[in-house]
Amino acid sequence: MCTNVEGSRFTPVLMGSGAFIGEFTLAAMLERADTDGIKVGDALKQIGYQGAEPVGGRPVGAYFEAHIEQGPILEDERKVIGVVVGALGLRWYDVVISGQDAHAGPTPMRLRKDAMVAAANAVIEVNAIAQRFQPNGRGTVGFMQVKPNSRNVVPGEVRFSVDLRHAEDGELERMEQEMRAACERHAKAQNCTASVERVANYPACKFDSGCVSGVRNAAARLGLAHMEIVSGAGHDAIYMARVCPTSMIFVPCEGGISHNEIENAKPEDLAAGCNVLLNVILERARVGA
Amino acid sequence: MCTNVEGSRFTPVLMGSGAFIGEFTLAAMLERADTDGIKVGDALKQIGYQGAEPVGGRPVGAYFEAHIEQGPILEDERKVIGVVVGALGLRWYDVVISGQDAHAGPTPMRLRKDAMVAAANAVIEVNAIAQRFQPNGRGTVGFMQVKPNSRNVVPGEVRFSVDLRHAEDGELERMEQEMRAACERHAKAQNCTASVERVANYPACKFDSGCVSGVRNAAARLGLAHMEIVSGAGHDAIYMARVCPTSMIFVPCEGGISHNEIENAKPEDLAAGCNVLLNVILERARVGA
Repeated sequence: MCTNVEGSRFTPVLMGSGAFIGEFTLAAMLERADTDGIKVGDALKQIGYQGAEPVGGRPVGAYFEAHIEQGPILEDERKVIGVVVGALGLRWYDVVISGQDAHAGPTPMRLRKDAMVAAANAVIEVNAIAQRFQPNGRGTVGFMQVKPNSRNVVPGEVRFSVDLRHAEDGELERMEQEMRAACERHAKAQNCTASVERVANYPACKFDSGCVSGVRNAAARLGLAHMEIVSGAGHDAIYMARVCPTSMIFVPCEGGISHNEIENAKPEDLAAGCNVLLNVILERARVGA
Repeated sequence: MCTNVEGSRFTPVLMGSGAFIGEFTLAAMLERADTDGIKVGDALKQIGYQGAEPVGGRPVGAYFEAHIEQGPILEDERKVIGVVVGALGLRWYDVVISGQDAHAGPTPMRLRKDAMVAAANAVIEVNAIAQRFQPNGRGTVGFMQVKPNSRNVVPGEVRFSVDLRHAEDGELERMEQEMRAACERHAKAQNCTASVERVANYPACKFDSGCVSGVRNAAARLGLAHMEIVSGAGHDAIYMARVCPTSMIFVPCEGGISHNEIENAKPEDLAAGCNVLLNVILERARVGA
């Protein structure tokens, strides 16, 4: 993985690979500061990691990246290797449902403008939309903020996030249209209003078919149970795919859990992933030679 | 209204009337402290409001209380006087839906334990239950807390409040049973678990039929448009009704809004309410004499 892949301390995420492919300039990235005002460039100098080599600008024959799946599919399907064919497109939205605060006792049901009920219906629709766009649709409401958030007040405002993902950009666009219509419809049904703002949009990524075949063949040669899979998370490989043939190798992780203290992967699965990585690179080097 | 009816600075609410009828002891109430540690007794002394008369313990012929409705019914029905026949019973619950945090990208819909989707279904059921128990059923989810509350994480835990109200305790019990079953069912449907804890329970209150008739007759004699209404909020009258014949008089408030800077009532409606109060007390004094 490249520098600052997670973006936890410094934004943006995928900083190193983004700078490598020219999505961001090196100078701008070195100036990015954390919440204490410390800049990336100074933090790199402090730990002795600011190298002298230029970033990017040179040809790359191919890029392969091995990673834990960060999801439960391989474990569920009892496969050791995920042959990653691409990555889901991602769109993020901020939704605000506006109604009217009202006393939960004296306000009869028919005269309410209950933003919580409208939001709850929207949450269920986001889930239902993703279910309709299988196998690769995802729909998540991960964040919600209720105002005034008091147990005896009908909420006058509910803000929530929507995260939609799909392997096909056209399908993602259809999911967005259905989500927007659902928010409008459910807000109106509760005499509320809805505002839906798209705040992020990353198109779907399809990896190079030659690289994907290389991963599949390497897994097969090593006798490892494997299946095609689409990455749901962001990776350096998604930026690298813009400048060179790319694919990824996934291995299972326990319960699909990642970014969590209980993240765990079996040593033998990690070794299998490394062997596939080694084999596909050796094979690619032979083909390229 | 009696001392500390709202309970905003010192808990419990309805402190004065509760002490008057013996629900709380005077000594215990004087010791209650605000968040700065200042006690009720000291605060009363400071403003010169700690009187010398004993609290309660003497017979009361009848109790009438005039109040804004704090709801939109009278305005909606174009009535000036609400003849209050009683107060809704109230039950409060803390609900926790527990699932599993998961990355919103790599986790397919079918393998999620999405506490937000379960909670959203429960919110809609609370609303639907109240709709089924009309005319006096109320169901509100006013508070919600999502963990980890991050836009790209499937929520592993959602906590929310439920506020159920009804004019009949038996109906309120049925509402509770339906709500508990709905939380269980929707948690299970998302491979989550639900815990539902009842944290408050105030039975429904029926005011004295003689006092209610008195209010109705006074409104009629004054030629004021009136209707029977059930209070959805708590009032000193609800405690007083335990020790003497009681009723209340409601007048409309703009948009049903109260406990808010924009709370507003028309001077002529307030005057009408005061006239009904005066008339019913004079009539009651004549009857009692």
